Amino acid sequence: MKIAVDVMGGDYAPEAVIEGILLALSSLSNDDTILAVGPQDTIEQLLAKHGYAGKQIAIIPADQVIEMGEHPTKALSQKPNSSIGVGFHLLKEGKADVFASAGNTGAMMVGSLFSVKTIEGISRPAIAGFVPQEDGTYALMLDIGANADCKPEMLDQFAVLGSVYFEATTGKKAPRVGLMNIGEEEQKGNILSLATHALLKENKKINFIGNLEGKDFFKNKADVIVTDGFTGNIILKMGESLYKIMKDQGITNDFVENTNYEKYGGSPIIGINGNVIIAHGASSPLAIKNMIKLCRSVVESDVCGKIKAAIENQ
Amino acid sequence: MKIAVDVMGGDYAPEAVIEGILLALSSLSNDDTILAVGPQDTIEQLLAKHGYAGKQIAIIPADQVIEMGEHPTKALSQKPNSSIGVGFHLLKEGKADVFASAGNTGAMMVGSLFSVKTIEGISRPAIAGFVPQEDGTYALMLDIGANADCKPEMLDQFAVLGSVYFEATTGKKAPRVGLMNIGEEEQKGNILSLATHALLKENKKINFIGNLEGKDFFKNKADVIVTDGFTGNIILKMGESLYKIMKDQGITNDFVENTNYEKYGGSPIIGINGNVIIAHGASSPLAIKNMIKLCRSVVESDVCGKIKAAIENQ
Repeated sequence: MKIAVDVMGGDYAPEAVIEGILLALSSLSNDDTILAVGPQDTIEQLLAKHGYAGKQIAIIPADQVIEMGEHPTKALSQKPNSSIGVGFHLLKEGKADVFASAGNTGAMMVGSLFSVKTIEGISRPAIAGFVPQEDGTYALMLDIGANADCKPEMLDQFAVLGSVYFEATTGKKAPRVGLMNIGEEEQKGNILSLATHALLKENKKINFIGNLEGKDFFKNKADVIVTDGFTGNIILKMGESLYKIMKDQGITNDFVENTNYEKYGGSPIIGINGNVIIAHGASSPLAIKNMIKLCRSVVESDVCGKIKAAIENQ
Repeated sequence: MKIAVDVMGGDYAPEAVIEGILLALSSLSNDDTILAVGPQDTIEQLLAKHGYAGKQIAIIPADQVIEMGEHPTKALSQKPNSSIGVGFHLLKEGKADVFASAGNTGAMMVGSLFSVKTIEGISRPAIAGFVPQEDGTYALMLDIGANADCKPEMLDQFAVLGSVYFEATTGKKAPRVGLMNIGEEEQKGNILSLATHALLKENKKINFIGNLEGKDFFKNKADVIVTDGFTGNIILKMGESLYKIMKDQGITNDFVENTNYEKYGGSPIIGINGNVIIAHGASSPLAIKNMIKLCRSVVESDVCGKIKAAIENQ
């Protein structure tokens, strides 16, 4: 398996990314290769600094960098030799099985749409986030920010995308799908959630268990949490913030530890013709290590192929 | 001050409500009276059971009860002698300074609109919720569920309503107003939040500090958190759920204790010609006690009068 990693992505790049790659090496198979995308000199120096001289890391030169604040479409067209641009080129050409970056989220999203493109029949891809549950499991929530304004049909598709992803990566059949809403009852909600509820109820491809409320977020009521990217982004970030708040107050236990985003390594973009992972901008070496673990999981479970099959059978 | 309390409202009514009223007595002034609205026999028996024979509790007979699941408008018109119906009658006639209930939220909202009515110039009243902050303070968030679908102009008014409420009850001048959103930058958001941001920026009646993200929810970045009732309801309930999760895991400290909704006693409806408090359906005696404390606060600070003045000067 060839895992392309943007060495220049994230607040602590390139150091944290290289350290994360080195941490990940022990969990790789012998025939796995990390394609470290970034400036050759920088990467060589960092690898030398850590005394690495092995063959599981291949440097793929890319001299430009897309910064965090840059406009995604503009940056991608003006910087074809950026680490994100080159990463997507590798993915499109089949030279990488997966591409991951802790860099500019918008550029990762736009790059996905322009290079490997949306799967035919999918209206809009979503970014999925992992939500720690009180009992130690996790739920998959989508969308968490790619689509701030959604239509009911989009959420209906997110339910299918999430179900296929969850089943493919965990093996759990017929994962429970819940709709984030403001009441358990079918007649509760805003215009979007009311219309979405009606679609989900009739959707035979999913195991819809009904509405979820904010109080159910951590309660393992659903495996897949369906919501628009505005709501999903806010509640995911709110959940993640607990880790630091609790740590600052000297509190920890398994649940608190699981609210640490570093554990999940990133968020897959689902609904495109390729495997792309977006990691947290503040990714530490541990987060990058887990990002690479997540890369292996999406490739091994063939999420992409299974989504295509599910959509074709619609 | 005359505080009307719905004795039949809430999952643990009437027992918990009567116990809560009795707990609240010690914090009342001598000239405060609790108007206990509900079936006379039931209330008399419960007061006798607790050995109460004082004069600060007056029973206002109401033989009907609006159940939690009932349709608000239908229930109010079919049950004029319900505890909620009678409570609003007292409020409208000026026989009560404030009315509070842990019962059917929809009926409390509809009752407000039909009896004391919306303040002239206000597009839609909002329900405000208290959000515990990491540092022990709290923020006021609105709307938390009265308006699942909002327009930018409504959120712009919520910002004014929340600011007046916060300043009137805490004394803090020019409270900081933040807009719940998916990024700090002005150009981030969904259609609603983008348009709202533009209005808030130009609103001279408020101290707008910009967008908040989910990670800022507990961080005391704003005194007033502006959001639509869909988002607000979900994140408020999510925040409240932390209390039980942490308690179940044997964790507690000041912050965790502050996520206990019992502490706040309820949520004021803001933007109507009267003082109305909606308490949590699962209110315990402690929650009812604090609900009564909140009643005193809204009456004493003359929130209603100050909102009218603020709107008239628009």
